[in-house]
Amino acid sequence: MVLLNMRLSCCTWNREMSNRMEFDQPPDRIMTYDGLESCILNANNSYEDESVASKVGDRCPTDSPSSCCSSNNASGSFFSQWSMVKRDEHEWDYSEDAMKFSDVDVMKEKFAKLLLGEDTTGGRNGVSPALALSNAITNLAGTVFGELWKLEPLPDEKKNKWRREMDWLLSPTNYMVQLVPAKQCGPDGQTIEIMTPQARGDVHLNLPALQKLDSMLLETLDSMTETEFSYDEGGSRAEGRSKRWWLPAPQVPVGGLSDGQRKKLLTQAKLVLQIFKAAKSVNEAILLEMPIPKAISDVLPKSGKESLGEDLYRILNRGSSSACDMCNALSLKSENSALDAINRLEAAIYAWKDKIEEHDSGKSPARTSWSCKDHVAELDKIELLISRAESLAQEIKIRYPDLPQKFLDVMKIQNGKDVAHAIIEAYSRVLGNLAFSILTRIGDISQEDVLSDPDSPMATNSTPGPGSWIYLD
Amino acid sequence: MVLLNMRLSCCTWNREMSNRMEFDQPPDRIMTYDGLESCILNANNSYEDESVASKVGDRCPTDSPSSCCSSNNASGSFFSQWSMVKRDEHEWDYSEDAMKFSDVDVMKEKFAKLLLGEDTTGGRNGVSPALALSNAITNLAGTVFGELWKLEPLPDEKKNKWRREMDWLLSPTNYMVQLVPAKQCGPDGQTIEIMTPQARGDVHLNLPALQKLDSMLLETLDSMTETEFSYDEGGSRAEGRSKRWWLPAPQVPVGGLSDGQRKKLLTQAKLVLQIFKAAKSVNEAILLEMPIPKAISDVLPKSGKESLGEDLYRILNRGSSSACDMCNALSLKSENSALDAINRLEAAIYAWKDKIEEHDSGKSPARTSWSCKDHVAELDKIELLISRAESLAQEIKIRYPDLPQKFLDVMKIQNGKDVAHAIIEAYSRVLGNLAFSILTRIGDISQEDVLSDPDSPMATNSTPGPGSWIYLD
Repeated sequence: MVLLNMRLSCCTWNREMSNRMEFDQPPDRIMTYDGLESCILNANNSYEDESVASKVGDRCPTDSPSSCCSSNNASGSFFSQWSMVKRDEHEWDYSEDAMKFSDVDVMKEKFAKLLLGEDTTGGRNGVSPALALSNAITNLAGTVFGELWKLEPLPDEKKNKWRREMDWLLSPTNYMVQLVPAKQCGPDGQTIEIMTPQARGDVHLNLPALQKLDSMLLETLDSMTETEFSYDEGGSRAEGRSKRWWLPAPQVPVGGLSDGQRKKLLTQAKLVLQIFKAAKSVNEAILLEMPIPKAISDVLPKSGKESLGEDLYRILNRGSSSACDMCNALSLKSENSALDAINRLEAAIYAWKDKIEEHDSGKSPARTSWSCKDHVAELDKIELLISRAESLAQEIKIRYPDLPQKFLDVMKIQNGKDVAHAIIEAYSRVLGNLAFSILTRIGDISQEDVLSDPDSPMATNSTPGPGSWIYLD
Repeated sequence: MVLLNMRLSCCTWNREMSNRMEFDQPPDRIMTYDGLESCILNANNSYEDESVASKVGDRCPTDSPSSCCSSNNASGSFFSQWSMVKRDEHEWDYSEDAMKFSDVDVMKEKFAKLLLGEDTTGGRNGVSPALALSNAITNLAGTVFGELWKLEPLPDEKKNKWRREMDWLLSPTNYMVQLVPAKQCGPDGQTIEIMTPQARGDVHLNLPALQKLDSMLLETLDSMTETEFSYDEGGSRAEGRSKRWWLPAPQVPVGGLSDGQRKKLLTQAKLVLQIFKAAKSVNEAILLEMPIPKAISDVLPKSGKESLGEDLYRILNRGSSSACDMCNALSLKSENSALDAINRLEAAIYAWKDKIEEHDSGKSPARTSWSCKDHVAELDKIELLISRAESLAQEIKIRYPDLPQKFLDVMKIQNGKDVAHAIIEAYSRVLGNLAFSILTRIGDISQEDVLSDPDSPMATNSTPGPGSWIYLD
């Protein structure tokens, strides 16, 4: 069993945005959405010695690195590429012509309610359009995918609803522009500098990537036909036979799955894991860009120690222990305690960074009372604490990859005014959740497979959730 | 020449909303939108001794008062009536089936931009949905009607655009509800009180009325066919012949219009004047309901005298002079000075009312230092000043019926959060402006008619603007 470099890539969430889509590319290349699909597929193919007869995998016969990455071309070309791909009906094949008249009414109702900000009394207490859009994306995903208890193709009706309504909810991004300087030839032959409108950087970078991930997830579900596993509906079984008897239970043939089916499932799991990480990395990067609302930053404790509490503060200050040791010392009992620890760490990091910023801008009142030497030592200590707190938080996130939203993130979303941030955050979040659900369901199947055939190679991946897939052999 | 009771009705702008639509009905009846059209038409017919061959007038052959007013029925019935009329394709004949696919894109773009609050960089600096909708209605009216330099039917293309896009902009009101208590029979025969959703009161009362006024204005324009007057396009005339030579100039036959044409024009003017007043009264009532934003009320002078300035304060305090005398004493030179006077009066009224409210709630700091007698005298004086300021403001409004928006109103609109208020305010404002333009154009024609035939009965109405129409004989 080898620890894949995926785990490393999982730690790169705080790299700069343009590097976000890299998984196993040399760091001097900037990868765009264009290379994303083939890159993820190539990453998968390289784990296998033989070609895998997966529907999705077949679409990427070459694994030359140059086919994975578009070069770091000029922004003008980026833009035209983006426009082109957005119109590419093959990849994102929602077509206006398919819209029925009744859909127009649904669309009008949807938009009208968004404008009311979910306040049906008239919008006086409505939320901002940014939050309304974010909630609408969350709710749409909930309606279409639900808890996703079964691995099977999404019914056409649901798939159409998802694509149609996401198209509406994403539509504000089509009208977002930023003005960038460009050169133009004047009538007298002189070159003049003008401002030209261009798609907003973060929208242009993330949205096509997310749409690609979206398509890939739906394709993965679509490929779940003629499977050897099936589902037993909850109602037909006696109570007590299963812990969650009311849910569909996976069934595999006596003696386990065939080798072909196992390989296909493993390939799908690896693909979906990459999608999960990509979506999560977009989500984390956009959340970092979103400002902490002033009302919240005003009430956060100004001292890092106060935010952390005794235990966490002691652990962070305990000499040279590694992130892993610190995490073990915390002895987290549940997701809740993990979330609480991360919330405290983030509040402390915020307070410390604020202190450093205050010092850098010369506003710190402490400056006058400290001796210079003490002062430098204090700042060094704060920087060390920030770095240790960040690695501890990262370690906790790796151990609990599907934690609920963190306090500061929830506040950022609920108070955000930027529509693009809201849309990208929500879209990447629901895609990440969908990928996580698919991984969990594949985990269910492999668990069932191992029960039927204890020698199954699925044994190492039989616990649900992406955590187990990081160690894929 | 008789002073019509229209002038009186013009002063009723601060009556309670439910009475708003009355013009010449006994005050114990509450009139709904249902009676509005026939009522306005009846009011017109009663000025004429003979039946007028106007297309619109013909539609109301009876002038029995009972046909004008629906009775003050229960709110449940109000609601069903409202729903019914909203679906009445004859009155508001925008049909979804007529929507083309390209319209769907236009609609999506419109809504997406509304959600961005006119901030194409991404909505972070966007205005509230309420203001975005208000501005969109204003801009749509500007695009469709423009300055309305000619009396002629609106081209179908523009009419369709107006109806289609107004339907989108009004759509949030379809999803506004308020919960009202209602009785329901429980399964055990007991009557239980439940809350049922109902259309919001102000929406339910005003929106169908405004849609009726809208239809009537478009019908009036539609009836401007086979006219004896015509327009000379600006380009064909030599500069200097007319003050505004670049605009279409009305032309009447040598010797003036025929009697039939004159009567038709007069009837239309009276109808449009009533529509103007109805729209203005809805607009003023909704503006009264909209709160003054806190940021503005905080910075308004706390003293009425300070708001008024020396001149206005002296005039208000000058003994027993009437509103008319006070207005003459002001010797207003222009619309600007009239607007300035009204702004000052409104700020002073606000400050005084605030003082009275403070006293009533026992918060006034002055209470401790004044003797009780002085105090009562002071409050009486303030109440007198408020009443005089209100009648002076009303007098100025009558003399300048088409003043630009007042400062406090602009602030209310720009800071309003309530989508229903914003929509009703903007819709009634643009309808009022359209009616005013039509009246002005009819005034242009009658001026031209009087030039061609000095004995024309149009002579008394030959100055443009509704001011002159108030004295219609």
